[in-house]
Amino acid sequence: MQNPHFELLSEHACFGGVQRFYKHASTEIGLPMRFGVYLPPQASAGPVPALVFLAGLTCTEETFAFKAGAQRVAAELGLALITPDTSPRGAGLAGEAEHWDFGVGAGFYLDATQAPWSGHWRMESYLIDELLPQITRELPVDAARMGISGHSMGGHGALTLAQRHPGMFKTLSALAPICAPTQCPWGKKAFTGYLGPDESLWAAHDASALMAAQSAAPYPGGILVDQGLADKFLDEQLYPQALEAACAQAGQPLTLRRHAGYDHGYYFISTFIEDHVRHHAAGLAG
Amino acid sequence: MQNPHFELLSEHACFGGVQRFYKHASTEIGLPMRFGVYLPPQASAGPVPALVFLAGLTCTEETFAFKAGAQRVAAELGLALITPDTSPRGAGLAGEAEHWDFGVGAGFYLDATQAPWSGHWRMESYLIDELLPQITRELPVDAARMGISGHSMGGHGALTLAQRHPGMFKTLSALAPICAPTQCPWGKKAFTGYLGPDESLWAAHDASALMAAQSAAPYPGGILVDQGLADKFLDEQLYPQALEAACAQAGQPLTLRRHAGYDHGYYFISTFIEDHVRHHAAGLAG
Repeated sequence: MQNPHFELLSEHACFGGVQRFYKHASTEIGLPMRFGVYLPPQASAGPVPALVFLAGLTCTEETFAFKAGAQRVAAELGLALITPDTSPRGAGLAGEAEHWDFGVGAGFYLDATQAPWSGHWRMESYLIDELLPQITRELPVDAARMGISGHSMGGHGALTLAQRHPGMFKTLSALAPICAPTQCPWGKKAFTGYLGPDESLWAAHDASALMAAQSAAPYPGGILVDQGLADKFLDEQLYPQALEAACAQAGQPLTLRRHAGYDHGYYFISTFIEDHVRHHAAGLAG
Repeated sequence: MQNPHFELLSEHACFGGVQRFYKHASTEIGLPMRFGVYLPPQASAGPVPALVFLAGLTCTEETFAFKAGAQRVAAELGLALITPDTSPRGAGLAGEAEHWDFGVGAGFYLDATQAPWSGHWRMESYLIDELLPQITRELPVDAARMGISGHSMGGHGALTLAQRHPGMFKTLSALAPICAPTQCPWGKKAFTGYLGPDESLWAAHDASALMAAQSAAPYPGGILVDQGLADKFLDEQLYPQALEAACAQAGQPLTLRRHAGYDHGYYFISTFIEDHVRHHAAGLAG
């Protein structure tokens, strides 16, 4: 299959389907970007529903594909898995790689408004207006049946993008998401740098603030969130209780599972990802 | 739990059990070594059977634990997973890290006889006489119910160590193993460097040569081997046909599955590892 906009970097047979990695020239970012797609065996017969999974700080388009073990269930259920990168790379901005929680690997899935980041750090427009539409045009993925999930910073991305773009994602879940970035150190640092010091502009990128302002449940089928209780970032950075309160206020059904003993990493993700894939496949089949 | 010989580096809840990484001072190697152990939930009630998985060139004790996704089935079946490192590290020998297929990350699971490697590169004695006995003494792993498997160089390790130490491993399998190292470039380079130029000494570390010399099937319950047909190393390095012929000669039951489209990497391993875990669990339950 030739894709006019995508350069195939590698392809690996996996559970009867294919795990691919692509490179493409992004107009929104102004730089080459990479992403991964797992196509289940069912995709050879026509477009399939897809789960977009947004990764966390320091991750790349490969991390979830390598470590989560989600392809097995995706193959069983006929779901594609789309894994974007976590930021622009190669912009060459001063200090862009000095912090593991800001700059490279830390795009926070929003469009920066502050120089110098505003030139390339446009992850929201990149995903919503460029990458996902291109994927659904050029690969056997059904634009009308997309769900979104993510981990940590990517959980923030999933919860905010799903609310900021109603109708684009039919199903929503997250693992150990940053639920209230306007209140936690990671979020305050990122929002100050990318959006500027005016905190009134931050709430539009805060999952809990967005949810608290909803007049009707955006996901009446429910949102699934898993959180490990041995997660070292839980108390300072993640604030699942803020999302819980906001969902209660909005009447949004939320299944928030707290798991004793589980930490923030991919052993936690791999343990619970099957339930997320099933949650999305069920919601996208309807 | 305190282990007198093992220093716990990290512990991660995973599928109801724990993925741990340890460091210990190895007498055989003469350097600190690391290894991984996955203990399934059943291990909290007493010793469980274990699968030793030997990784391939360039890998570490983390690679299989990160990428194979084997913990899920191991948890279901109550099997521990033991993942050693692939070579000594930190010896500081001249050129030890210059080649990806010799030296660091490429111990080939044998005891080197040639200087300077013979001082530290003693992976066979390390595994058989030190690490595995220590694990079964200090962790809830049953020494009488161990199986062994591995990938590529680690498949060579599994197939040779199982034959060289009869009775130590009750079950045996491999993924894309180096089946005839005396005949392939990887093996010739490693054996020349570690064992010297006298090729008559090499056959004792060649899985197919060992098997051809067996007077009775060492694994009457069968050996499981998976091989991808899109594996770029298949023709030049792996020689599954040599193992197949040797098993036929020895009367050793062998299930050698050739999979169209699959390559040499962890997407291949993750696809078929469940069958290997089930093969070992079934054989170790008897």
